[in-house]
Amino acid sequence: MEKVYLLSAAQTPFGRLEKSGRDLLVEACVRAIECAGITPKDIDAGYVANSFGFVEWQSHYGPILMSTLGNPDAPCMTVASACASGSSALHEAYMGIAGGFYDCVLVAGFDRIEVKDTTKLTTYFTMGCDRVFEAENGATFPGLYALMASEYIMRYGATEEDLAHIAVKNHSNALHNPVAHIQKKISVEDVMNSPYIARPLKLLDCCPFSDGAAAAVLCSEGFIRRFRGERIRVVASSLTGGEITLHTRGDFTTIPSAVRAGKDAFRQARFTRKDIDMLEVHDCFTVAEAIALEDLGFAERGKGAFLAREGVTAIDGDIPVNPSGGLKAKGHPVSATGVAQVVEVYEQLMSLAGGRQINGAEVALTHNVGATGGSCAVHIFRRVK
Amino acid sequence: MEKVYLLSAAQTPFGRLEKSGRDLLVEACVRAIECAGITPKDIDAGYVANSFGFVEWQSHYGPILMSTLGNPDAPCMTVASACASGSSALHEAYMGIAGGFYDCVLVAGFDRIEVKDTTKLTTYFTMGCDRVFEAENGATFPGLYALMASEYIMRYGATEEDLAHIAVKNHSNALHNPVAHIQKKISVEDVMNSPYIARPLKLLDCCPFSDGAAAAVLCSEGFIRRFRGERIRVVASSLTGGEITLHTRGDFTTIPSAVRAGKDAFRQARFTRKDIDMLEVHDCFTVAEAIALEDLGFAERGKGAFLAREGVTAIDGDIPVNPSGGLKAKGHPVSATGVAQVVEVYEQLMSLAGGRQINGAEVALTHNVGATGGSCAVHIFRRVK
Repeated sequence: MEKVYLLSAAQTPFGRLEKSGRDLLVEACVRAIECAGITPKDIDAGYVANSFGFVEWQSHYGPILMSTLGNPDAPCMTVASACASGSSALHEAYMGIAGGFYDCVLVAGFDRIEVKDTTKLTTYFTMGCDRVFEAENGATFPGLYALMASEYIMRYGATEEDLAHIAVKNHSNALHNPVAHIQKKISVEDVMNSPYIARPLKLLDCCPFSDGAAAAVLCSEGFIRRFRGERIRVVASSLTGGEITLHTRGDFTTIPSAVRAGKDAFRQARFTRKDIDMLEVHDCFTVAEAIALEDLGFAERGKGAFLAREGVTAIDGDIPVNPSGGLKAKGHPVSATGVAQVVEVYEQLMSLAGGRQINGAEVALTHNVGATGGSCAVHIFRRVK
Repeated sequence: MEKVYLLSAAQTPFGRLEKSGRDLLVEACVRAIECAGITPKDIDAGYVANSFGFVEWQSHYGPILMSTLGNPDAPCMTVASACASGSSALHEAYMGIAGGFYDCVLVAGFDRIEVKDTTKLTTYFTMGCDRVFEAENGATFPGLYALMASEYIMRYGATEEDLAHIAVKNHSNALHNPVAHIQKKISVEDVMNSPYIARPLKLLDCCPFSDGAAAAVLCSEGFIRRFRGERIRVVASSLTGGEITLHTRGDFTTIPSAVRAGKDAFRQARFTRKDIDMLEVHDCFTVAEAIALEDLGFAERGKGAFLAREGVTAIDGDIPVNPSGGLKAKGHPVSATGVAQVVEVYEQLMSLAGGRQINGAEVALTHNVGATGGSCAVHIFRRVK
């Protein structure tokens, strides 16, 4: 296997944006290419993660992107795995370089849904779960994650306030992230007083629907030799599958695909949990961050929900989680998210994170989940000299 | 690089089918798995090509497929590149095995659009071209390929009758293909008397809209050792990109991405054109078959349109082209097509093609184009002992 490096990562702001999806895609890629200090012609291949292109009656974004960038010869396909689309694209790029096929790969993810009506957007999102056995029976994502939260609270004695602390922490982090969708400080009371969406999850337990795009440039060791200075190596890339439906699983308080992806990633990297300086995890709902920390081995079963309250996962805590603000406050443009997590990793490991900088961060992990765990990808990154 | 083998390939019938897309997907995969003589648990990873899942409000088909098959742990993502989606999935599977990441990969492609209104379907198809610069200006695929055909006819003195012979030949081949969408013999007069869709292309110059699914199992040399008998090796897998828009290209009578993919595939395989016993090429319109033969080096520039009339590309000709019936008569369920071409290769190289069998076929090439050439993949297969 060839070594794989993260040369750059950049993104558009996240939010409700009055630009087309394709414009957002190109904007993020231009930023990443400029950040990398390369030209578009250096790119051997691309992967574009996208889920909702059909709302602008467009697919085949790969050649649209590469033609716009001025390097149409490079192959570039669309990949999708619901909310794990971005990290799936990253995984394919990793394999392309590690396998010796490519030297420089552009990875991008974006989504933009013009519709701003929450009911309709929730319907769009259900495309990622099982239409026949879940969505058509009323099980939307807030409902599915509420089942997980209920079971979690009942089994482990966690409270809704414990989960609220996760939202408060991620909103606090996003105050220092200029590209975050929601840059608004909230209190535990604010969360507790927000209306129930699907009991026990309230409005402020849920991530927003966002528009946005993110991009990263991955390259081989041979390619990165032309650049001086510190660099970031991708030391693990693990992609797993899981049961698409929640009701076919024995336990709602864990995501088995995440457990396996985490174990596999640590095996690839030959790291232990103690080596990790920061995590970006898939907090589509507050409870998802608690479960992620347990699935990845950073908390014992039933203890993940208490770490935000205890300050352990704060930027200055023992194991900072979602310094970007996470899906919860940075935002969640479905297929951009897995790549946007890498943008945070890049900025943290290169000491570019400003007011949310984690001192001395050298090793970072990203965790990106599709639907309720039908797909999961875990990547580990390390700054090297 | 590890050697990559094609263990099996199978498909559903193509046509207007009263089954959901997901049912078609699973059906094709079950057939391919049974044909391979493996169990679903043998599969390390999957790739599902799909473009129009949104019409049944479903994405994330990977875990739906793997959960249905009883192997939910295997990662499985969706890939898309318009009409080259199937071969893009194949390429990713090839890289996964050649790069040493996987031993056994399931590749599937399917599409099913419930709408049967031609105008609406043509609109759906335009998602693969450039929405802003082509579709919104009225340039649908029949129109775009008609520009190519006009230029071809003007430049090279080919006639509409020459192109009609391509349709007649492919319809004739499909008479022997039980899964073909259109099993109806036609004459040159039938083509010439069919109504113009976009001059000079007439109704019978165009492939149909089809529903359907196809699947293939690829594996490593280590994996295939458990099986006896003849086997098929994937000796080349090349994926390229090209300008998304037709109007930005200097020449409408060639598809540059296909020229590059072909050259690269022959370089990988270390074969010459004379080594190839049969081709499955992307004949979405009759003129596309003529151009494909030239782009791949099987005909001189301006001569590809005459080969069907001369009998060169017939099943018993010097270089049989589209023995399956091609997109023209076998049918074109967008994302299934690239995988379905491999089904024909499998049946021909394993001498299972019945009335359309090419005697002694040992080496086959597939050519799958996305849109007017924004993407192209060429694969070469060889039967080995």
